[in-house]
Amino acid sequence: MNAPGSARTVTPPEHVFDWLDGIAEQRADAGLTRVLRARSAEEGQLDLAGNDYLGLARDKRVAGAAAAAALRWGAGATGSRLVTGSTELHAELEYELARFCGAQAALVFSSGFTANLGAVTALTGREAAIVTDKYIHASLIEGCRLSRADVAAVAHNSPEAVEHALATRRKQRALVVTDSVFSVDGDLAPLRELSAVCRRHSAALLVDDAHGLGVLGDGGRGAVHAAGLAGEPDVVITVTLSKSLGAQGGAVLGPRRVIKHLVNTARSFIFDTALAPASAASALAALRVLQDEPELAERVRTRANELSTRLHEAGFAVTVPDGAVVSVRAPGPDDAVAWAARCAERGVRVGCFRPPSVPDGVSRLRLTARADLTDSEMDRAVTVITETAPPQARR
Amino acid sequence: MNAPGSARTVTPPEHVFDWLDGIAEQRADAGLTRVLRARSAEEGQLDLAGNDYLGLARDKRVAGAAAAAALRWGAGATGSRLVTGSTELHAELEYELARFCGAQAALVFSSGFTANLGAVTALTGREAAIVTDKYIHASLIEGCRLSRADVAAVAHNSPEAVEHALATRRKQRALVVTDSVFSVDGDLAPLRELSAVCRRHSAALLVDDAHGLGVLGDGGRGAVHAAGLAGEPDVVITVTLSKSLGAQGGAVLGPRRVIKHLVNTARSFIFDTALAPASAASALAALRVLQDEPELAERVRTRANELSTRLHEAGFAVTVPDGAVVSVRAPGPDDAVAWAARCAERGVRVGCFRPPSVPDGVSRLRLTARADLTDSEMDRAVTVITETAPPQARR
Ligand SMILES: Cc1ncc(COP(=O)(O)O)c(C=O)c1O
Ligand SMILES: Cc1ncc(COP(=O)(O)O)c(C=O)c1O
Repeated sequence: MNAPGSARTVTPPEHVFDWLDGIAEQRADAGLTRVLRARSAEEGQLDLAGNDYLGLARDKRVAGAAAAAALRWGAGATGSRLVTGSTELHAELEYELARFCGAQAALVFSSGFTANLGAVTALTGREAAIVTDKYIHASLIEGCRLSRADVAAVAHNSPEAVEHALATRRKQRALVVTDSVFSVDGDLAPLRELSAVCRRHSAALLVDDAHGLGVLGDGGRGAVHAAGLAGEPDVVITVTLSKSLGAQGGAVLGPRRVIKHLVNTARSFIFDTALAPASAASALAALRVLQDEPELAERVRTRANELSTRLHEAGFAVTVPDGAVVSVRAPGPDDAVAWAARCAERGVRVGCFRPPSVPDGVSRLRLTARADLTDSEMDRAVTVITETAPPQARR
Repeated sequence: MNAPGSARTVTPPEHVFDWLDGIAEQRADAGLTRVLRARSAEEGQLDLAGNDYLGLARDKRVAGAAAAAALRWGAGATGSRLVTGSTELHAELEYELARFCGAQAALVFSSGFTANLGAVTALTGREAAIVTDKYIHASLIEGCRLSRADVAAVAHNSPEAVEHALATRRKQRALVVTDSVFSVDGDLAPLRELSAVCRRHSAALLVDDAHGLGVLGDGGRGAVHAAGLAGEPDVVITVTLSKSLGAQGGAVLGPRRVIKHLVNTARSFIFDTALAPASAASALAALRVLQDEPELAERVRTRANELSTRLHEAGFAVTVPDGAVVSVRAPGPDDAVAWAARCAERGVRVGCFRPPSVPDGVSRLRLTARADLTDSEMDRAVTVITETAPPQARR
């Protein structure tokens, strides 16, 4: 690098992005190149990769609500929530979400990602300390980085580590941040213990219940509800509308004053076009399905347990699921990709997670159960995963 | 604040968020409290506040495409783009967007906000310098903060200031970041001059064309296309699907290797559920309307000019629009709110921008023209805005 102000040789425009080529090569050498594959509407693969845990994305009531809303309200919301983007649909969704989950109020964002950015940044800032589990979702990590708070990322699922970080923090205000069900391995955070630790140390608790809503708790009210913490004055919940609810979008739930504060200060809320009416309407329709069929949540948990048990019996290193996610260890990134590809060839779509999308560097298949999986689909899934496994995948 | 490790008095849970109350009070005292107002589907206000510049959000072709896609593909995409979220609709939209705007390739995100986060962070990093116009959109600012690059925010629309910052940077790699049409005042950045400056200093140029797409350039191909820069090897464009295209979502357009790099590294792409099929389909349908009716872009510009001229003649301090946005200076935040409220009472919805959503601290009405405004709607808008103005609003 030249000293500031000194003459540099000028790079011609066509070489300005040459630095990307070296990075691409390293990625390829490490077997970590990702490419997009577009699926067709009719492909008919057995899906164990998506997060549509209750099978509601294509449910007629849910997709039909999306279609009707697009025709009635228009394809887009036309502006940010504070200008023209708030419709009665958004208000209704917020009311119903809060009621369903047991929170005082809710605020809908255009994604779970932006909901997390907004909640973390607006509730912290330079004068705050954040203590997070080290495996929290990327969107929460980005929120922490944006917040300018002191951030301590501590050992996974360790209330003791959280307590130590809170006790030694240098800022008065503190927020503890965790996923409820961790997205990669599907394990559950010790929410009650974390809340107790927070209370001993005057900290607020923010729980990302993206993978808990629709899956855990009474009728799918989520992991925070199950832990008895949903309506608590010191607890904030974030959720996504894009998993169990089969739609798109995100929301923050919590005490009314927290929600008002977000309306006024969360930059990812204020400076973002509102969620499309079709997505708001489909999330709302899915919530109503959940209320009409409270057994859906238990059904997906049963299926996940079955999948885990059978793959364990087949000799794989598999997680015991707390929610809908089952993770199966693969020998390495190349093996994981090849394994997933062989499953796809045989009509079973499984998720393949490898660095940098896994916090611990371990490559694995990520399987998701669905409430509407049939017995014969379960058999087929287990058979295909077993028969396509690389030899070193067994314990 | 106590010293680390020393005993603190414990705050009861119901008081953990008490600090929000003081902030809320300050906000109220300054006249800056924002509340959400939900609109109904039938309210019939004359809309000069939204960003649906071409009136396509409710166009039957566009809303119909959203409805059809929800029924065919489901309400949600079910997963991130790299797992199950990429459908043929997303691929088609990327292909058509790139072709329409004259770029090599495109990548669709769930919002313009996350597209900006992804583009800025993935193309910079600790080893890079970013030089931005000081009035760039909040989502670009958040991207800069997340990037860990050296960031210099320089004088508005000043290629000289950008040049000075580039010449004195301390990092070899550099990215210049600007809006094309600035969202608050609607003025256009000097894109050709900025590109020339970039080239003298071996920097890449990132242009957020959110308010240019559909409004500027041949048939609405955007401000970057109009400046002859769309296919250039050192230029990256971000757009949103939520304004002229009447849908939701965002995209990054640029050289193929840039797009591949984003697929592999942009965290707001990798860790976010894909855009809902209905939104992708409606953006695609809107693009096709633009191709069939290339006169739409000129029509909205004509309407914006007319609005600006007539309000200028009526004595207001109004911007001369480069695109669809016309901004009218208000005496202060309270006056701006009251003015906008009086317009709404009389059936005309105008935007009201005040701190902290305005970079310069000046409160104003923000008006947006639409291609489908009729003459009598124009008359009504000008009459209502004029008759409801606070006395000090005249120049
Ligand atoms: C734990 C967690 N939080 C947040 C998100 C982001 O939600 P969304 O995809 O709706 O942006 C996801 C998944 O994408 C997630 O797994
Ligand atoms: C200049 C600019 N960039 C980006 C965005 C964000 O786009 P989106 O609303 O689609 O997230 C907006 C508006 O919201 C904008 O005005």
